[in-house]
Amino acid sequence: MYSPTIQKLINLFSKFPTIGPRTAARFVFYLLRQPAEETQELLAVIANLKEKIRLCDSCFKSFEPPAEASEGKLCEICRNPRRDKTTICLVEKETDLIPIEKTKKYQGLYFVLGGRVSALKKTDFKKLRTDKLLERIKNSEISEIIIALNPTTEGEATVLYLERKLKPLNIKITRLGRGLPVGGELEYADEETLSSALESRK
Amino acid sequence: MYSPTIQKLINLFSKFPTIGPRTAARFVFYLLRQPAEETQELLAVIANLKEKIRLCDSCFKSFEPPAEASEGKLCEICRNPRRDKTTICLVEKETDLIPIEKTKKYQGLYFVLGGRVSALKKTDFKKLRTDKLLERIKNSEISEIIIALNPTTEGEATVLYLERKLKPLNIKITRLGRGLPVGGELEYADEETLSSALESRK
Amino acid sequence: MYSPTIQKLINLFSKFPTIGPRTAARFVFYLLRQPAEETQELLAVIANLKEKIRLCDSCFKSFEPPAEASEGKLCEICRNPRRDKTTICLVEKETDLIPIEKTKKYQGLYFVLGGRVSALKKTDFKKLRTDKLLERIKNSEISEIIIALNPTTEGEATVLYLERKLKPLNIKITRLGRGLPVGGELEYADEETLSSALESRK
Amino acid sequence: MYSPTIQKLINLFSKFPTIGPRTAARFVFYLLRQPAEETQELLAVIANLKEKIRLCDSCFKSFEPPAEASEGKLCEICRNPRRDKTTICLVEKETDLIPIEKTKKYQGLYFVLGGRVSALKKTDFKKLRTDKLLERIKNSEISEIIIALNPTTEGEATVLYLERKLKPLNIKITRLGRGLPVGGELEYADEETLSSALESRK
Repeated sequence: MYSPTIQKLINLFSKFPTIGPRTAARFVFYLLRQPAEETQELLAVIANLKEKIRLCDSCFKSFEPPAEASEGKLCEICRNPRRDKTTICLVEKETDLIPIEKTKKYQGLYFVLGGRVSALKKTDFKKLRTDKLLERIKNSEISEIIIALNPTTEGEATVLYLERKLKPLNIKITRLGRGLPVGGELEYADEETLSSALESRK
Repeated sequence: MYSPTIQKLINLFSKFPTIGPRTAARFVFYLLRQPAEETQELLAVIANLKEKIRLCDSCFKSFEPPAEASEGKLCEICRNPRRDKTTICLVEKETDLIPIEKTKKYQGLYFVLGGRVSALKKTDFKKLRTDKLLERIKNSEISEIIIALNPTTEGEATVLYLERKLKPLNIKITRLGRGLPVGGELEYADEETLSSALESRK
Repeated sequence: MYSPTIQKLINLFSKFPTIGPRTAARFVFYLLRQPAEETQELLAVIANLKEKIRLCDSCFKSFEPPAEASEGKLCEICRNPRRDKTTICLVEKETDLIPIEKTKKYQGLYFVLGGRVSALKKTDFKKLRTDKLLERIKNSEISEIIIALNPTTEGEATVLYLERKLKPLNIKITRLGRGLPVGGELEYADEETLSSALESRK
Repeated sequence: MYSPTIQKLINLFSKFPTIGPRTAARFVFYLLRQPAEETQELLAVIANLKEKIRLCDSCFKSFEPPAEASEGKLCEICRNPRRDKTTICLVEKETDLIPIEKTKKYQGLYFVLGGRVSALKKTDFKKLRTDKLLERIKNSEISEIIIALNPTTEGEATVLYLERKLKPLNIKITRLGRGLPVGGELEYADEETLSSALESRK
């Protein structure tokens, strides 16, 4: 029904996270209506993305190295001497790291796992940077790993996998506290959340 | 449009919590279709409700006193000698108390406030059983009050009101821990919930 | 967790259409909080329901017969000489009839089927008043039957069943027009709805 | 919080229809994870879009002209001699045209208005291609205009505006039929939808 170029772009947009064919079509017509300079700008920034963004050698968060290549291996958090080098906060993906940084309540370092496991898909294990994580912890000052994964079924499976891998290292492993979220209601809270909320009261 | 008796019952059901005229109408036709014995049973249980249910003199939870009137003033929790008499868990309503009891992680006593305040409606304050609460705490063994109200805007307003009232009593006041609920996601968690989750990690 | 009488009433309310145990519990505490006179009123109206409401002999809509028993067999619509006796509008349940009457665009008579069929549950066929419908149509002035059932999968199954049963009677059978509802959007309309909307344009 | 290039791209994606900052961030990390060849492909197709896609001179639908420039002014529908040249179907946007074509029940031509009006924003009127529409109709074989706009508040305002503009042309103006959509329920249908469904029964 759509011309080949339009259909091709709808197919590509349909692969974006959360996007289906209807919204992909809306994107295409949004771009068609857009003045040429705005489309040029979008293309330039996307092209730049891979050029300018590196993954930190230590925590695998993305960052934009300054011109001087010497500082090009570590992100601004890992480079910051005032950060607490004894604690690592483990997250599944970078979009989980940002909310934690925004609280301004965490002074330690991070590690971006890069994925999560599902009991059914064994190949997921390779996506996780577990070996790099173990390497980083050995022979370092790290004394605590905070596992900050989502308390969902897949998150839980991943936590169990990681706890097994990290046990031999004999360092303190903690997990984010469970409890009632802002706006939550006791009437609808599940047992586990409520138990945690009771235990962590203050 | 509906006959007077049907319309009358629709109006009464429309006052039930969460119920509007469409669902109220469905209730009425459900009752009309129901065999006469089932409607009789429903009427008997509703009539019984006020007869058989009392509010506990101490915590204001509902209970069904056994035949012997001597034990008719305290609910089964307040009567239970094995409960921890040094802690009271404050809830807004009975349907908040039940989930906490179900965790089996709380051994203390309760107090049902009976409502919550809204900054805009001053008459709400009278609904709360604050005087009875203060009375109960004075000259008792109580050393901790857990305020287990919903972390919503109105819940918060009520907490502030209560903390002010309870301060003079000089006992430990705690609040249920905030944090990520089961199924929650860091990406969508607000700052306050995440800060609490970080602080209460273990 | 709840006292026996409260649990009993929660179980009875949980059988109401759309109601689960949480909302049923809220109903119970709403009734407990209610002044005794209001509960009495509710009980009286429910008790009255079966007493005062009859089903029309002709269309099976509910109605409240006036004191004089002579007029006690037909509802106010079937009794109204100004109604168009040549058309019957078939509905699944009374709560579907009311919205049609409210349009004030229909002058004919009705027939309440009493249910719908599902391909999987053969016993549903007995719930429908098909025999009474056929009886009513034979030897009458009826020249058109409007099948006003919901355009859902079960509604469709019921329409096919009825069309088969009504075919021998050789009268005009029509169905409510399909099309875009108020607030609807072409982008999200399915093919069938759109085809009908095109055909029925004016 | 994000590096400048990432933040820049999040801002650009946030302007896409239905997209907010959270989903925009997910898009950026999706692109970062994507192999370089796939990103190249996306960039190429977007760059191509403006190059390859033209708007039809007659109906303003998008199309991809073939190499021979002579046929480059009309889309494949307007060029098709088998289409019914006496009917135009007016749509707000191209994503409304596609569902209608997919029904295979419409053989006429189209016209893409390019927008809709809101009572409050007078500048919207310029977005609509009303002058081009009037031009197209004058001195043509067109005998019917089907206004296929969404039956929403803004759609309605636009219909009234158009009917006023088209009246002097003295040709038949029709609107898509309203009615119950597939899956719809009488209980929840509004009066207007139901009235239409009754009138358009067959």
